[in-house]
Amino acid sequence: MGKKLAKPKSQTPAAPSRVIITHVHPEIEGGRFPAKRVEGDIVAVTADIFTDGHDLISAVLLSRRQGESAWTESPMRGLVNDAWTGSFAVREQGIYEYTLQGWVDHFKSWQRNLAKKAEARQDVLTDLKIGAQLLEDGSRRAASEGAAAAAQKLNEWASLLRGSQSATASSGGGPAIDAAAATELALSGEVTALMAQYPDKRLAAVYDPVLQVVVDRARAGFSAWYEMFPRSWSSEPGKHGAFRDCEAHLPYIAAMGFDVLYLPPIHPIGHTYRKGKNNSPVAGPDDVGSPWAIGSEEGGHKALHPQLGRFEDLERLIARARDHGLEIALDIAYQCSPDHPYAKTHPEWFLHRPDGSIQYAENPPKKYQDIYPLNFESEHWQSLWEELKSVVLFWIGKGVRIFRVDNPHTKPFAFWEWLIREIKAEYPEVIFLAEAFTRPKVMQQLAKLGFSQSYTYFAWRNTTQELTEYFTELTRSEMAEYFRPNLWPNTPDILTEYLQSGGRPAFMARLVLAATLGANYGIYGPAFELCENKPLAPGMEEYLNAEKYEIRSWDLSRSDSLKELIARVNRARKENPALQSNSNLLFHKLDNDQLIAYSKMTADRSNVVLVVVNLDPRWAQSGWVNLPLEDLGLSPYIPFEIHDLLTGARYTWRGPRNYVRLDPNAIPAHLFRVGRPRSG
Amino acid sequence: MGKKLAKPKSQTPAAPSRVIITHVHPEIEGGRFPAKRVEGDIVAVTADIFTDGHDLISAVLLSRRQGESAWTESPMRGLVNDAWTGSFAVREQGIYEYTLQGWVDHFKSWQRNLAKKAEARQDVLTDLKIGAQLLEDGSRRAASEGAAAAAQKLNEWASLLRGSQSATASSGGGPAIDAAAATELALSGEVTALMAQYPDKRLAAVYDPVLQVVVDRARAGFSAWYEMFPRSWSSEPGKHGAFRDCEAHLPYIAAMGFDVLYLPPIHPIGHTYRKGKNNSPVAGPDDVGSPWAIGSEEGGHKALHPQLGRFEDLERLIARARDHGLEIALDIAYQCSPDHPYAKTHPEWFLHRPDGSIQYAENPPKKYQDIYPLNFESEHWQSLWEELKSVVLFWIGKGVRIFRVDNPHTKPFAFWEWLIREIKAEYPEVIFLAEAFTRPKVMQQLAKLGFSQSYTYFAWRNTTQELTEYFTELTRSEMAEYFRPNLWPNTPDILTEYLQSGGRPAFMARLVLAATLGANYGIYGPAFELCENKPLAPGMEEYLNAEKYEIRSWDLSRSDSLKELIARVNRARKENPALQSNSNLLFHKLDNDQLIAYSKMTADRSNVVLVVVNLDPRWAQSGWVNLPLEDLGLSPYIPFEIHDLLTGARYTWRGPRNYVRLDPNAIPAHLFRVGRPRSG
Repeated sequence: MGKKLAKPKSQTPAAPSRVIITHVHPEIEGGRFPAKRVEGDIVAVTADIFTDGHDLISAVLLSRRQGESAWTESPMRGLVNDAWTGSFAVREQGIYEYTLQGWVDHFKSWQRNLAKKAEARQDVLTDLKIGAQLLEDGSRRAASEGAAAAAQKLNEWASLLRGSQSATASSGGGPAIDAAAATELALSGEVTALMAQYPDKRLAAVYDPVLQVVVDRARAGFSAWYEMFPRSWSSEPGKHGAFRDCEAHLPYIAAMGFDVLYLPPIHPIGHTYRKGKNNSPVAGPDDVGSPWAIGSEEGGHKALHPQLGRFEDLERLIARARDHGLEIALDIAYQCSPDHPYAKTHPEWFLHRPDGSIQYAENPPKKYQDIYPLNFESEHWQSLWEELKSVVLFWIGKGVRIFRVDNPHTKPFAFWEWLIREIKAEYPEVIFLAEAFTRPKVMQQLAKLGFSQSYTYFAWRNTTQELTEYFTELTRSEMAEYFRPNLWPNTPDILTEYLQSGGRPAFMARLVLAATLGANYGIYGPAFELCENKPLAPGMEEYLNAEKYEIRSWDLSRSDSLKELIARVNRARKENPALQSNSNLLFHKLDNDQLIAYSKMTADRSNVVLVVVNLDPRWAQSGWVNLPLEDLGLSPYIPFEIHDLLTGARYTWRGPRNYVRLDPNAIPAHLFRVGRPRSG
Repeated sequence: MGKKLAKPKSQTPAAPSRVIITHVHPEIEGGRFPAKRVEGDIVAVTADIFTDGHDLISAVLLSRRQGESAWTESPMRGLVNDAWTGSFAVREQGIYEYTLQGWVDHFKSWQRNLAKKAEARQDVLTDLKIGAQLLEDGSRRAASEGAAAAAQKLNEWASLLRGSQSATASSGGGPAIDAAAATELALSGEVTALMAQYPDKRLAAVYDPVLQVVVDRARAGFSAWYEMFPRSWSSEPGKHGAFRDCEAHLPYIAAMGFDVLYLPPIHPIGHTYRKGKNNSPVAGPDDVGSPWAIGSEEGGHKALHPQLGRFEDLERLIARARDHGLEIALDIAYQCSPDHPYAKTHPEWFLHRPDGSIQYAENPPKKYQDIYPLNFESEHWQSLWEELKSVVLFWIGKGVRIFRVDNPHTKPFAFWEWLIREIKAEYPEVIFLAEAFTRPKVMQQLAKLGFSQSYTYFAWRNTTQELTEYFTELTRSEMAEYFRPNLWPNTPDILTEYLQSGGRPAFMARLVLAATLGANYGIYGPAFELCENKPLAPGMEEYLNAEKYEIRSWDLSRSDSLKELIARVNRARKENPALQSNSNLLFHKLDNDQLIAYSKMTADRSNVVLVVVNLDPRWAQSGWVNLPLEDLGLSPYIPFEIHDLLTGARYTWRGPRNYVRLDPNAIPAHLFRVGRPRSG
């Protein structure tokens, strides 16, 4: 039942509340930003709540969907050291609000004191009269809330307490009971429960500010992405692929168990200063250019590259993908080629050089003459913002609900905060992934202001120590409240040295790490499953013959493809709820630095997954894993079964120390389900 | 020169600032509470400041005294990882405000890009034209601020840049210079400095909220307190002492080096339910009662106990104390004896029992019938607050500026916040010490809301581990910003088990710990210097024959008195600035848990003090101290002299590990000044 917070009117202002509510969690920058959850989550809220002196207090958590006027109350429970905790469920997408209310509970304090006095066999007749008054006050509150039966009950009890007499005194007529019986009644569960329903909140404190939590659909918290260049998927090598070619390959991608299919920009590509193969500054006549050089005479951000197909083709791809359990994600890259229509129709959105030409992108001494950045400091910023919003709405209109945002850190934070809030107010199901590999504070700010998921430094965290430190920060610091990591072992721009030098074993290790350390992860394929690892030049992270600049043709049937392993990993993710969130990630001690071990489990510990990965792509490594059995719900005396979901092998372990050996030339990882395996 | 933050008017709203300012320190609960400093301090402020993209930013710290309209700007300096730092001086008592301003610095960015292009020998003629525009804009800003000379200079440079030609081109007439010379000019210190004076702040971000720091006088941060019961200081044993008797003992107290002389309540004492000796519930006819049972027919909180003297006696004591470098602190205990005038004149300020009598204090099953607590939830809370404020103002009128507040945690937090703010608005020099030994969050809240100093758990932190953990929290956590510890090894209520069992060596150890771990400390004397350590009963922390309930007579000339040691310790505190603040407290490793070692040093490391204490009051203990020489400004190769300020002994140490041995039967502590001793 909803409650409003209106205070009773009074002639003189009531005394300020004696209750302090502080250190509320989650609370990001004093409530400036919302926390993030997915639908169905339980939001646990903790706070320090206390009052002066020795009186007892009570507190409730108040929550509501944004826009509702009434609050729902959930009880809060005192822990140690003035910390309190409570929770509320977020069942639907959108924004929820929450705050806390606490008050000095005179009735509860009175009960405590009465119990102590009774125990010390002190005279309590005066106390019972005071209690009668408290019950009568409660009765009036019940009556004013229309609870006539409760009001009457409370009044009856009040009469009994008021009329009670000491056991030694002679009892007259009327409803008198002796003090011992009155004490017992006053401390009874029945009285306690009814008074708790009608507490005296006249001097209650309400936490200010009201805090928010953004509730996304489940996929924002758990997803497996597959990135592909549609133009490379033609069945005829060298020919420009189209949406229809993608359609044909949906079963291939779905069989690996992905649920998001992300396409780089699908718009017309500029020809002025078009980049050639291998990022050459000069393009040949047949060079297709980078999809991120958006816009030509054929259109801009709301147009399709003619060779990919028409809108009906895209819409059919979206529908067919859905049939395969795949959702299409598009790329939002707010930048223009010199041939973009905006350059002619809206020159005011760009910075101009003294000669009147539009300023191209540069990072001196490098020039990027194929790109015109938008000028967000333009006097015409408002029309620019509106236009950019209309781009997102346009693709929403085509059925797209997931956007991977290119280089968000090169556009103003205030713009993103506005854009995402505007879009999600109308379409709360939209997911924005921030592609930013930049300074930590910048990446955090993008996540705080609203991005649903974020790229991370995962690609460059290779050792046990690096991974442990980074994922402890991601899952144990305040970042866990607002930053949802999406882990990519590779991207079209990033081929790490580890993958270059480690080859297939390295790809396998990084796959398992990405898919199990993070509830959200993705790969750039087929480069990933085919272990593409030749760099443009030694020491560079760019690919040789990068798909960004040319059409590639992939032999998907190669026998060394990782597609089977990927399918097993994604199946393990789907079947084990422990892998579907980032909380409860625990790293375990091992006596070999080349191995990393960690577990994840559900809050009720019904599902426990243990992962061990050999980070050395060359040699077999072995060691002893130390498990905190109690934390994992295991007995040190009873053997437990572990089931490797990658190989199907089953082992029986016992006690905290157990031996593992992983050969990178087979599979460099264990992905164990711990405990008695369920069916399947 | 002060600056205002008014923004230029414009037809269309300017684009939102691209600069983010976040994670500002100090900032307590989002600016809800002020940080604390003392006059003369430098307030260092750090924040994360960044923008999107690759532009450079500039930032300033803005500060002012509360009430001033103009801000003073101090430059901020970028550190690593988007952290910035700046500082401002707080020269006077009162409240200062501060905030931050940051902006994208297009001129600085342009200079950086120009330098890179010039280094890469690219053509920069277009860039120089862009720079000319930036200089002209700067010139206009200078002109609008009335800086005609600067405006002209900037315009001249702009002309040079605009007219520059590539070195190969033939130079016509006019002021043309070649591009290399123009670049050199544009990057010169002269141009940089002048442009930095007239930055383009149109799109600057200003941090919201404005933050505050309360600046107290120096004594709030550095003080040595001596607590005494005036009635025990008569020269005639057993006779009720008076202010005049205290006067006679001022030289004794001053010789020990204290600067605050704190008197328990000096008001008339109630006789109803007066407590007898040793807290007996029944007082004999000669029992003097507890000074905290305030009020009788002779007056309440604004009256003097007749046997102590008259107001002129108090005022003379205050003046004489000042002559000895001692400031009198009074006790504020907002509670009443049943005989207090308020009980008759303002019954509405108390809670009443069903029989109409006023509710006495209780902590069931204990009753404190000699005390009536005030009811802060009364409808008449406003007149109560005003009256309580008038009590403080009354004693301020008598010349008192330091108040030790009894049991502040049993009165509402909102009341204290109001009271302290009201008093300090008029009398910023007033110091309030919170006597609260209660839950950590409650003690923190009292300090946050305004108490200048706070009692601590020091009395119960005895081991190396306990002391290290507690003082790390006090000096390294956010508490350092608002919680000024005042360390008391004993009080009239607290005789710890450590002092009871450890005797004189324990008193010496605790003295040195209190006086050197905390810039503020105090002792309850003469019980302390005479090592009074008999408990009321085994296992109790109360004194036998507690001075709270009876007149004691002390033999100040006893040969085992610690007064000489106390004088040496207080002299060391006065002569070593390192001991006058709590920052830079560093604990050092030792291979013997019975010993504790720590150092304090001034920010410039010109004064370094090293303390080693034997915590075992029974046996001599020895061990090796490990010093972080580099942190202390010492060389590992050059011997350094240490001078024990307690014994006068001098030693030469070398390297990080040095041997100490402390015998509790001599002096269980070293208080070393490190480095070449200065005179004296």
